[in-house]
Amino acid sequence: MPIVHFSRRYHFSSSHRLHVDALTEEQNYATFGKCNTPRGHGHNYVLELTVRGPVHPETGMVADMVSLKQAVQERVLTRFDLQNLNCDPVFADLVSSTENLCRVAWKLLDDVVTSPAVLEQVRIEETSNNSFEYAGKEN
Amino acid sequence: MPIVHFSRRYHFSSSHRLHVDALTEEQNYATFGKCNTPRGHGHNYVLELTVRGPVHPETGMVADMVSLKQAVQERVLTRFDLQNLNCDPVFADLVSSTENLCRVAWKLLDDVVTSPAVLEQVRIEETSNNSFEYAGKEN
Amino acid sequence: MPIVHFSRRYHFSSSHRLHVDALTEEQNYATFGKCNTPRGHGHNYVLELTVRGPVHPETGMVADMVSLKQAVQERVLTRFDLQNLNCDPVFADLVSSTENLCRVAWKLLDDVVTSPAVLEQVRIEETSNNSFEYAGKEN
Amino acid sequence: MPIVHFSRRYHFSSSHRLHVDALTEEQNYATFGKCNTPRGHGHNYVLELTVRGPVHPETGMVADMVSLKQAVQERVLTRFDLQNLNCDPVFADLVSSTENLCRVAWKLLDDVVTSPAVLEQVRIEETSNNSFEYAGKEN
Amino acid sequence: MPIVHFSRRYHFSSSHRLHVDALTEEQNYATFGKCNTPRGHGHNYVLELTVRGPVHPETGMVADMVSLKQAVQERVLTRFDLQNLNCDPVFADLVSSTENLCRVAWKLLDDVVTSPAVLEQVRIEETSNNSFEYAGKEN
Amino acid sequence: MPIVHFSRRYHFSSSHRLHVDALTEEQNYATFGKCNTPRGHGHNYVLELTVRGPVHPETGMVADMVSLKQAVQERVLTRFDLQNLNCDPVFADLVSSTENLCRVAWKLLDDVVTSPAVLEQVRIEETSNNSFEYAGKEN
Repeated sequence: MPIVHFSRRYHFSSSHRLHVDALTEEQNYATFGKCNTPRGHGHNYVLELTVRGPVHPETGMVADMVSLKQAVQERVLTRFDLQNLNCDPVFADLVSSTENLCRVAWKLLDDVVTSPAVLEQVRIEETSNNSFEYAGKEN
Repeated sequence: MPIVHFSRRYHFSSSHRLHVDALTEEQNYATFGKCNTPRGHGHNYVLELTVRGPVHPETGMVADMVSLKQAVQERVLTRFDLQNLNCDPVFADLVSSTENLCRVAWKLLDDVVTSPAVLEQVRIEETSNNSFEYAGKEN
Repeated sequence: MPIVHFSRRYHFSSSHRLHVDALTEEQNYATFGKCNTPRGHGHNYVLELTVRGPVHPETGMVADMVSLKQAVQERVLTRFDLQNLNCDPVFADLVSSTENLCRVAWKLLDDVVTSPAVLEQVRIEETSNNSFEYAGKEN
Repeated sequence: MPIVHFSRRYHFSSSHRLHVDALTEEQNYATFGKCNTPRGHGHNYVLELTVRGPVHPETGMVADMVSLKQAVQERVLTRFDLQNLNCDPVFADLVSSTENLCRVAWKLLDDVVTSPAVLEQVRIEETSNNSFEYAGKEN
Repeated sequence: MPIVHFSRRYHFSSSHRLHVDALTEEQNYATFGKCNTPRGHGHNYVLELTVRGPVHPETGMVADMVSLKQAVQERVLTRFDLQNLNCDPVFADLVSSTENLCRVAWKLLDDVVTSPAVLEQVRIEETSNNSFEYAGKEN
Repeated sequence: MPIVHFSRRYHFSSSHRLHVDALTEEQNYATFGKCNTPRGHGHNYVLELTVRGPVHPETGMVADMVSLKQAVQERVLTRFDLQNLNCDPVFADLVSSTENLCRVAWKLLDDVVTSPAVLEQVRIEETSNNSFEYAGKEN
């Protein structure tokens, strides 16, 4: 069966602050610059999920877009949209960088599509010029 | 010789309806939702072809953009732009999903570039938030 | 009080066919070209509403975005998204051009915001290169 | 002399919270919804300035882009980029809505171009679907 | 009859150099900065024409898009696309600023639509952050 | 450690001419068409760098965005922005095609990130419809 990738974009607006408690104020500023500003800043994030799977011979589809949308809404958008990421328990001991946000999204959505389709990649745009991708790989 | 990927985007506007004749009305609606509406709906599709090949040592190019454009115009755009996809013979027994549209475009364009360049991937954006990719792979 | 314009974009995907019953087949083709193809074609339309009004001195807002979204959903998106425009009664005797779609949207949404805010303009993008605006003006 | 409008876009990322101290918690939530979440959220704002003026007969320009950029950097971007808008003194008693942010930007930049050119309009995109314009008009 | 604005975007890629022969090298650099570099630089220009007119009661259209496209192709795109603007006779004694390019396009296209429709405005994007508009007005 | 890809976009505007000295005028035109116009044309190029690396366990980052930006500014943007590519020594004997521009950017930036992160890919958009990628591979 032919293998197709399907990608879908979702949007959410959140605030965050890059900060490591174990570092001094100076070290934090040296590491994160203005992204360490105490009261935080924010972004219009774009989350793009890529699903890989065989095209169903009858329906012509790789994944059910409606159930995917519901799961992303429940697990990610309701949780992070119009919120401060740093206040979420998952970022209690984890810098709320977009690299880490990709990893968090991957864990929340890893099983979001049903076999034989699989989640291939999570991509998050932080601004129109910055983006990050995570595909569940470790080195 | 250095290997470069070249991608080019083309635009067409078509209508379609997601529908399987072998399913009942209820089953079709359960599978495709409003995309099963009898008289169809439509999209501004973006077709992006990616070609992979060595950079020609004299001309500095991977592929001839003019002949590529002509072939895409003749084989794909003239055929599908401002048309109803479901009326095309290729979709007589095939759901006109964008997954299948990618496969159809791949078959029509597989030999569109001359060796040593090869067609690497067909990508189609259905909306600004939905896209699909096919690279000729079977599982 | 300061006057601010607020614009909000909504998305829907529909099919249509440009056709005048009173014209012959040849006249229709001469007028509309391939946009007259019998089974139609389609677009990802973007509807942008512009509201003009004074900034509320306490809330700092010109209009209530939530009630606006609900009205647009009920009056326009539910009605036209994933549908064939030509099948809608409003286009029974009216060419489903985007010029006319702007006029239809204006009539459906003219009273959508509450005084002192007013609907200033309806703008519809048919493709990324074509757009139309209507502001309720007659000549 | 011919009159031309020149528009230039600038980008900044900030957090904010829509909240009126004089309202109760319930009233704030009824007015602003999730945009009232205590720890705030954020956006990638796009500030677009439009300048109107005669084309200089020798240089062919309406305004000096370099001095404009410096002024916007000093007066707006350095102040708000990667910051929490609510912490800025200008928003101490003013809701940090994008309507009000337009008014603040107008006041900070009103004299930014030298005669005979004038600032015509301030436009701020809050998200890719929401934008606001202020042209210094009162009703 | 209802009045609608129709806007259409066209694309061309040209090079240019901002330079005034009557100024010294130092004066040119002080005025135009790196845009005065002797061998020039270039842009992907976007030309957006806005036409205003009554909606034709039978065809539902404001202007004939096909004849408009042909005129823009013949008068503007064939002339400037993939060319150096400074080599065109119209810029022999005129700085090839985008302000002036708007004025040139206006003169070339002023009569491009047939009455009762009229050309309302020429807008040119020089980059994704810079744009210019000319509507035939003098002060 | 989790492996994340980070991509960052940079913008520059340059002119160029596709031309091979060893070919006749006719051969050059047959190969490059209007892109061979003697005085050249230009583009708003977008350079997108993709860096691959492990997420630092403390800072949550893959690469230092500030030092990356400085290096790209010094090595690429200052050199090519608002310039004619053909006048740069690197294109003295090399066609200034975007394929070759990708290779040049790769060589200039190959060591731009510090281990364990690596430069994964250089991608350049020549226009909104054309893009090229180079990942340092030879065939």
